[in-house]
Amino acid sequence: MSKTKDNKMEKIVSLCKRRGFIFPSSEIYGGFASCYDYGPLGVELKNNVKKAWWKTMVQENSDVVGLDSSILMHPKIWEASGHIEGFTDPLVDCKSCKRRFRADHLLEGRGIKPDLEVQREAPLDLTTIKCPECGGELTAPRTFNLLMKTYIGPVEDESALAYLRGETCQGIYVNFPNVLESQRLKLPFGIAQIGKAFRNEITPGNFTFRTREFEQMEMQWFCKPETAAKYFEDWRARRMNWYLKLGVDKDALRWREHAAGERAFYAKAAWDIEMKFPFGDGEWKEVAGVHNRGDWDLSRHSKFSGADLSVRDEVTKEKFIPYIVETSDGADRATLAFLVNAYEEVETRSGDDEAKHETEVVLRLHKDLAPIKAAVLPLSKKEPLSAQARAVFDRLKTRWQCQYDETGSIGKRYRRQDEIGTPYCITVDFETGTDQAVTVRDRDTMQQDRIKVAELSAYLTEKLAA
Amino acid sequence: MSKTKDNKMEKIVSLCKRRGFIFPSSEIYGGFASCYDYGPLGVELKNNVKKAWWKTMVQENSDVVGLDSSILMHPKIWEASGHIEGFTDPLVDCKSCKRRFRADHLLEGRGIKPDLEVQREAPLDLTTIKCPECGGELTAPRTFNLLMKTYIGPVEDESALAYLRGETCQGIYVNFPNVLESQRLKLPFGIAQIGKAFRNEITPGNFTFRTREFEQMEMQWFCKPETAAKYFEDWRARRMNWYLKLGVDKDALRWREHAAGERAFYAKAAWDIEMKFPFGDGEWKEVAGVHNRGDWDLSRHSKFSGADLSVRDEVTKEKFIPYIVETSDGADRATLAFLVNAYEEVETRSGDDEAKHETEVVLRLHKDLAPIKAAVLPLSKKEPLSAQARAVFDRLKTRWQCQYDETGSIGKRYRRQDEIGTPYCITVDFETGTDQAVTVRDRDTMQQDRIKVAELSAYLTEKLAA
Repeated sequence: MSKTKDNKMEKIVSLCKRRGFIFPSSEIYGGFASCYDYGPLGVELKNNVKKAWWKTMVQENSDVVGLDSSILMHPKIWEASGHIEGFTDPLVDCKSCKRRFRADHLLEGRGIKPDLEVQREAPLDLTTIKCPECGGELTAPRTFNLLMKTYIGPVEDESALAYLRGETCQGIYVNFPNVLESQRLKLPFGIAQIGKAFRNEITPGNFTFRTREFEQMEMQWFCKPETAAKYFEDWRARRMNWYLKLGVDKDALRWREHAAGERAFYAKAAWDIEMKFPFGDGEWKEVAGVHNRGDWDLSRHSKFSGADLSVRDEVTKEKFIPYIVETSDGADRATLAFLVNAYEEVETRSGDDEAKHETEVVLRLHKDLAPIKAAVLPLSKKEPLSAQARAVFDRLKTRWQCQYDETGSIGKRYRRQDEIGTPYCITVDFETGTDQAVTVRDRDTMQQDRIKVAELSAYLTEKLAA
Repeated sequence: MSKTKDNKMEKIVSLCKRRGFIFPSSEIYGGFASCYDYGPLGVELKNNVKKAWWKTMVQENSDVVGLDSSILMHPKIWEASGHIEGFTDPLVDCKSCKRRFRADHLLEGRGIKPDLEVQREAPLDLTTIKCPECGGELTAPRTFNLLMKTYIGPVEDESALAYLRGETCQGIYVNFPNVLESQRLKLPFGIAQIGKAFRNEITPGNFTFRTREFEQMEMQWFCKPETAAKYFEDWRARRMNWYLKLGVDKDALRWREHAAGERAFYAKAAWDIEMKFPFGDGEWKEVAGVHNRGDWDLSRHSKFSGADLSVRDEVTKEKFIPYIVETSDGADRATLAFLVNAYEEVETRSGDDEAKHETEVVLRLHKDLAPIKAAVLPLSKKEPLSAQARAVFDRLKTRWQCQYDETGSIGKRYRRQDEIGTPYCITVDFETGTDQAVTVRDRDTMQQDRIKVAELSAYLTEKLAA
C-alpha cells in the first residue's frame, strides 16, 4: 500500500473529526467496537445522501414506493432467508499469538476468491497459510454467524430470542402483500427502504467502510420472471448514473461481475459498483450492488410463513412468484465515497496575510450533498454590518442549512467553508448598506457575483436547485 | 372507556393498514412483539414529521447543531447514566392465571402515582390489589431492566455484552466535547438528534403509542446553571408551538408537571405535553417532555469516563459543569398524534353516483406533513388527456411526492386523496388541451382554481411553502 494513499485517508479521517463530520463513537470511554457517530456536518451530509437517493428512487418514480420496516422482526424470517444457517464468516485463530482472522480474507490475500457457499459444506483449505502477524500455525476455519441477537421479554431463553436485522431487504419481502394491496399496484413495481442493519463483523475496519452497525438504502423490484434480465440492466445503468450525477469521477468507478462461486447460489446475476478508496490494499472496493435474486426470496417466505406470495398473470391467469431485482447501496459507504471523491488539496488561493500555509483543502461535494449550502460572512463584527448580515442569514436559514461566521480574516473564513464544501459564501461588506447588495463567491469557479439582497433567495434557488 | 373512542381508534388503525400508513411488523408470520412497519404513505408522513422537527430545531436555529450517534455504544455509558441500576419496571405475576402486569400501572388504576425512584429501595405496596384478569393473588413486584442486550464479537460473555440504546440523549452527552470543539461553539447551545431507541417494555400497546423499538427526536441545550430555568421556559413554549403550528387543536393539548415523586431525583423540573388519544382509558397521554436535568448527565460521564466535561466561564474564568435542558419528542408518537388529530369524518361532499355511503374520511394533515402533496387526475384514461396529465405529473414529481390516479370516477378519486390527506388534487380535463390549464382543488376549502399548466409549479410552491 502506498504512503500517499495512507496519507490521504489519514487526512480525511482527521478532517472528519476536526470539523465535525464523523467522530469515533463513545470516544470519551476509549471508543467502542468500530462504531462511529456523525457530527453536526456529517449528519447533514449523510441526510443529504439519503435524501438524494430517496428522491431518485421513490419521489421521481411513480412505480417505486417507500417503506420503513422495524429492525426487530419475527425470527423465523431469518430462517426463511437462510441467514441463520448460512450467514456466516469462516474464522481461524492463530495457535501462537491467538489473533483471529477471516479465512476468506487470508485466501484473498493469496489471490484466491473462495466460494463461501461451498465452504458451508467443506471447510476452506488453508493448509499452506500461516498467521500473517506471527507466522504461527492456524486452526481449521470455523463458521461464525453474523446475526446479532437480543431477547424480547423478561426471560432470556430460546423462545425470547430475536435478531437485529442483518439486511433491510427482508423487511421489504415480508411486506410485499401489504404494499401490493394497499397501493393497488401491478407488476412491475419497486419498494425502497433506508434503514439500519447490524452484522457481527469480526474484522470491521477502514473507518466507516465496514462497521457492525450501518445503514442500507435498498430497492427491491418485483417483476415477471421473463422480464427480470431486462430490468436488471435498467437498474444497473440507473444506479451507476446516480453516483456519476452526484459528482463521482467516472474513472473512479467500475463494474465487477461476481464470479460464479462468489455469488449466492440462487442469484441469477450479481454485479458490484466498485470504487478505489485510499486505504488498505488500495484495491477496488464495493460501494453498491445490483442483483437478480430470481424467485428465491418470495418462495422461501411463502414456504416458511404459509402465505401465498404469488400473483396472477393478467392475461394468462396463471399464478407465479415474481422475480426480484435488487439494488443495494450503503448510506455510510456512499457518504464515505462522496467524501473521498470530493477531497482535494489546492495551492493557496486566498491572498490574505494569514494564508501562510501553501495548500488548502476544498471539499468539492455536489451542491445537493454539501452539508452547508451558504455561509454569511460580515466583513466586520460591528454595526451596521452585523445587523445587515444577521438579516440576510435569518432570511436564508428558513430555506437552507446555513452558517454565520464573523471571526477571523475573510480569507480564513473562505478556507473554513471550502474545507467543508460550502458552495456559496456571501460577504456583507461596507457597500451593502448603500447598494443593498452582497458578494456571492462560488466555491468551484471562484467567481464573485454582486447580488441584490432582495434577489438573493431567487439567485440561490436557481444555483442550488437539483 | 367509551365506545366512540374505541371506534375512532379502530377506524384509524384500519385506515392505516388499508391505505398503507402502518402495518403490523412480520404480519405474514403472525406479527411480532408489538413492532410496526411504516408503509408507503406512513414512511412519507413520518419522514415529514422528522423533517419538520429538524427544520425547526436545527436549520432555523444557528445555536443548535445536529448529531447522529450510533445505537451501539460503550456499555459503561449505561452505568454512568444510571440505566443499568435504575432503568427498571416493577413487574408482578398472577399466581393463578400467570399473566404479568406492571405494578405501577395497577396502582395508577387505583389513582395512585407511584414513586418509581423510591420503589428501587423498597417494593411497591400492592397488598390490596388482585389480578385484574382473574382476581387471583399477585406476587410481590420484582424489578426488570428495560435495556435490550446484545453481544459484540464471537463469544457471548460479560466482556462482549452491549446494549441497544435506551434513549438517544446519551449519545449527545458523550459527544459534548467533540461537538463543542469541532463547531467552535460557546454556551449556550443545543445538540439535536433523531434516532431509534429500544426498551424491553413488558406491556407495549395502543398501536404505535408504546413499542419496544421507537424513534426519538431529542435536543439537549447546554447552558450556565443560573440560566437553565429561563431556557427551560423558552423551550417549553417552543415545543408546544411546534405541535400547534403543525395543526394540532389547542384544546387537544395540555401541560402536566411531574409530581415530585414521579420525576428522576436529579431533575430540577419536568413537564410533559399531553394529548387525548382515543384509546385505553381515554385519559391524557404524554407526547413530549421538557426537562431541566441540571448537571447530572455531564457530571456522571465526567466521573465514569475520567474526561473533563466542564467548561470555563469567559468572565470569571471559573470552571463549571453546564446544566442541560432537554426536549424529548417521539417520532412515532408525534406521527400518531398528528394522524389522530387530523382524522375527520364528514358528510359526503362529492355528488357523483358512486357516492352511496354517507360519510367520508378527510385527513386534515398540515401541508408540511401530508405524505402526498398533489395528485394528478385525468378525467379520461385515453389520449390526449393521458399524455397531458403525465406531462403535468412528470413536472411536479421532481419537486414533490405526487400520485397519479386514473381509475374510477373523479368523485371516488377525490375521496381516495381526502382519506390520505392530499392537500391538492389536479384535474386534467377536456378543456386542458384548449386553455392549457388544469383545475386545482383544495382539500380543506373545496375551492377549485383554474391554473395555467405553465404556472402550476409556482402556484403550488406558494401554497405548499412552509
